[in-house]
Parts: sequence; structure tokens; C-alpha cells
Amino acid sequence: MSERGKLSIVGMGPGDPDLLTRKAARVLGEAPVVAYFAKSGRVGHARGIAEGLLARGVRELRFEYPYTTEIAHVSDEYRAAMDCFYDKSAREVAAALDGGADVALLCEGDPFLYGSAMYLADRLGPAYRHEVIPGVSGMSACWSRAGVPIAHGDDVLSVLPGTLPGDELAARLGGGGAAVIMKVGRNLAKIREAARQAGVMDRAIYVERGSMTGEAVMKLGDVVTPGAPYFSMVLIPGRRGVR
Amino acid sequence: MSERGKLSIVGMGPGDPDLLTRKAARVLGEAPVVAYFAKSGRVGHARGIAEGLLARGVRELRFEYPYTTEIAHVSDEYRAAMDCFYDKSAREVAAALDGGADVALLCEGDPFLYGSAMYLADRLGPAYRHEVIPGVSGMSACWSRAGVPIAHGDDVLSVLPGTLPGDELAARLGGGGAAVIMKVGRNLAKIREAARQAGVMDRAIYVERGSMTGEAVMKLGDVVTPGAPYFSMVLIPGRRGVR
Repeated sequence: MSERGKLSIVGMGPGDPDLLTRKAARVLGEAPVVAYFAKSGRVGHARGIAEGLLARGVRELRFEYPYTTEIAHVSDEYRAAMDCFYDKSAREVAAALDGGADVALLCEGDPFLYGSAMYLADRLGPAYRHEVIPGVSGMSACWSRAGVPIAHGDDVLSVLPGTLPGDELAARLGGGGAAVIMKVGRNLAKIREAARQAGVMDRAIYVERGSMTGEAVMKLGDVVTPGAPYFSMVLIPGRRGVR
Repeated sequence: MSERGKLSIVGMGPGDPDLLTRKAARVLGEAPVVAYFAKSGRVGHARGIAEGLLARGVRELRFEYPYTTEIAHVSDEYRAAMDCFYDKSAREVAAALDGGADVALLCEGDPFLYGSAMYLADRLGPAYRHEVIPGVSGMSACWSRAGVPIAHGDDVLSVLPGTLPGDELAARLGGGGAAVIMKVGRNLAKIREAARQAGVMDRAIYVERGSMTGEAVMKLGDVVTPGAPYFSMVLIPGRRGVR
């Protein structure tokens, strides 16, 4: 009986293939099977980063999310559909591992920071040899491209989803620490209002598609569109730090 | 007159040289001059990661911190000494750039996340061509090595310095979100007490030297030593996320 394969959960970094780690690049080049999540009808961000780096003859397991837009995560129906989706994806990866193949799961950014990878790790981790290869996060790419040190000294740094209620956002932004707001998209107007309310508008930076084609960096106050694309963030650099 | 050199502010990742990005490795291999901070009498963490990756005949600018331990950042004397130290370091880098050499500034982890690099970026950024190359953060290495997804869905993630007062730490840990506590060291006992008070002890993980030689991962509740080394963190994974 052949040995079971090993699962590598690979951080693909923020978008620029040059920001892959050396380890990730090596694992990708050797994996006989790669797996990744993608939105229906799209290449898949993680898969796109891997273009040109995969082994010849690699087998691809593509898992298409059952929903195409992020919906309010409250319905039982949504939960059940996602559970079922992750169960099915895990079974396909398990079958490849059982057959003795090593599998690389491609994950945008850093796998264990707001990634879907954890749902497969939950399901497969206990039974299979596995390793998590950390990656450069999308946040790091954004503040590096913006040229804005995000936190220093004894700053508190808060990573906030833009889906939070406006009042809570404003309260958390008002504490004087540093902040990163993710999931900007359709929450842009609310985030702008919260930043104004918290008095941090003067140091709020908006970054769209950091390290990717079509990158844009500007003051949040200068953003005039009502919404933002999926790959966008707002940065509030800290100012409490002491040299 | 020759053109001025370019400054690359290079994220060296958390410790394992295999976790350098491909871009960082290339820039290191080509730079005629590298600069880095180090504690007196030590190799310097960033310089250590670069071992074996630098160009032959590279010139090294080594900047030794005037203090060997982190002291309370309150005295005017400390501020003045650090200002003077960063001014002097910036002048040495500027001299190399003025001579036409490209300079790679080696920075542990991700340069603009709690790094000293920003003090040189502040001083040199306005006058010289420069680029920040993001790196895998020490935090990412810790949660990846611990096998613990840190945040998911709509979790708030707080990055907290262990130097915060115990009450403030406890209050921030008690909110139900995810947290990472840095600067554990001599604050370990206080952090443990804050975690207990906040009711998060059951999910608090202690990671020492993540991705480095001598790595250790354990429950915070199982740590019996009174203090911790410099490269240690406490992770409180979020639990609010919905699939």
C-alpha cells in the first residue's frame, strides 16, 4: 500500500508572482496535484498567480464557490450550502492524498489570515500530514505600495471588516491606534463616514489592487466613487509610536 | 555625474530563509551595498537570514542600536539618542546612494509592520528613489507553524503590544475577536493574567521562535516560565467567523 500524500497549504501572496516565497515556488513546481477555490466563471485569484509556475502535467482540482457575491452571512441556507461545498472539496483533496499524491492548496495572501483554506485544514488536518506555508498578506502589499508604515512602537493595530456597523467602525477607529479596513467594496460610503466621524480622515489612505495590475493609491478623502472593487483596503497608519 | 542609487527596503521574512520572497532574494543577490540594524554584539536577525544570499564583495553597513534592551519609551534622553542614531544611519545610507550604489536595507519580517525601517524611510524617502518589498510577517509564521487560523469571516483582529497595561489588555481581549500579542518577553505574567481575566485562556496559544531554530508551540496555560524570549507571541484565534 502506497503512502498517503502530504497536503501543503500554500500562501500565494498578494498578487505579484514575484512576491511568492521561495518555498511556495518550489512546492508549486513539484506538486503533482494543485487545488484552489475560484468564483464561478473566473480564473481564480490564487490560480492566476500560479500561472507558469506549475509542474507539467499537473492535475488541477478547481472548487467553484456556490455563491458569486458575498452575501450577509446569516442565513442557515447559506451556511449549509457552504458546509456542503467545503465537505465536497475536502473529499476530492482527500481522494488525491489517499492515492499517494502530494497536493498543494493554493491560497491568496496568507492562508490562515481570513482565508478559505482553514475550512479544508479543519476537515483534513487531523487525518493527513500537512504544512501551512505562510505568505505575504494583501495588507502588507497595500501599505508597502502606499509607502505608509502602518504601525510602530507600542501602536495597537486593528484589522476591521468593513461590514461592521458604522458606529462600531467609528468607535474602533477613534482609539488613536492604527487600523486596516478590509471588505471595503459596497461599504465604502459607510467607511468614509466612520473615518470622518472618528477624526482620522486626514491620515486615511485608500489602496485598490495593491501589487496588482490596475493598482491605485489615494487619500480616502479623494475617493469619489460610491463603491470599491473587491481588492481594496483602507489604511489608517498609527501615530502613537515613539522612536 | 553618475545617477544616484536606489534604496530597496527588503522584508526578510520571519527567520527561515526559505520564506524570503523571490523578489527579496533577487534584490539581495544583486545589491552592492546592504544595510541593517543589529543589537550590539549580535549578528543581527535580518543579517542572519541573509547569510549565503548576498553578492560577492558586498559592502555592509551595520548599525548597532545604542540600547541593548527595550526600555520604557518615555525618557527624552532615549528619544534623543534614537533620533541621533537614525540620523547617523540615514547619512551613511545616503552617502552610498549618492555614490551611485543601490542599497538594500534588510528588515526582519515585513518592513512597515513594527519595523525600524520606517525611520530610515522617513529620512530618505523624500530625496531618493526607493521601494518597499513586503515580507512574510513574524505573526504569519507563528500562526502557520501553530496550525491555527487566526481570523475568518467578519472577525476583528487586534495586534496588541504586551506592554499595554493589564486592564487594557484584558478589555481588548474580551471583545470576542481574534488577537495577537507581541512583545511578550517580560510581560508574560501580565499577559497570562489578562487572558485569564478576559476568559480566553482556553484558546490562547504561545509560540516561541516561530519558523526558527528552537521553535516551541504550546497552550498559554501550559507555559510555566516567568518570562519569554524576544521572539515570542501569544495568539488568540477568533471564533466569531461564520462559514
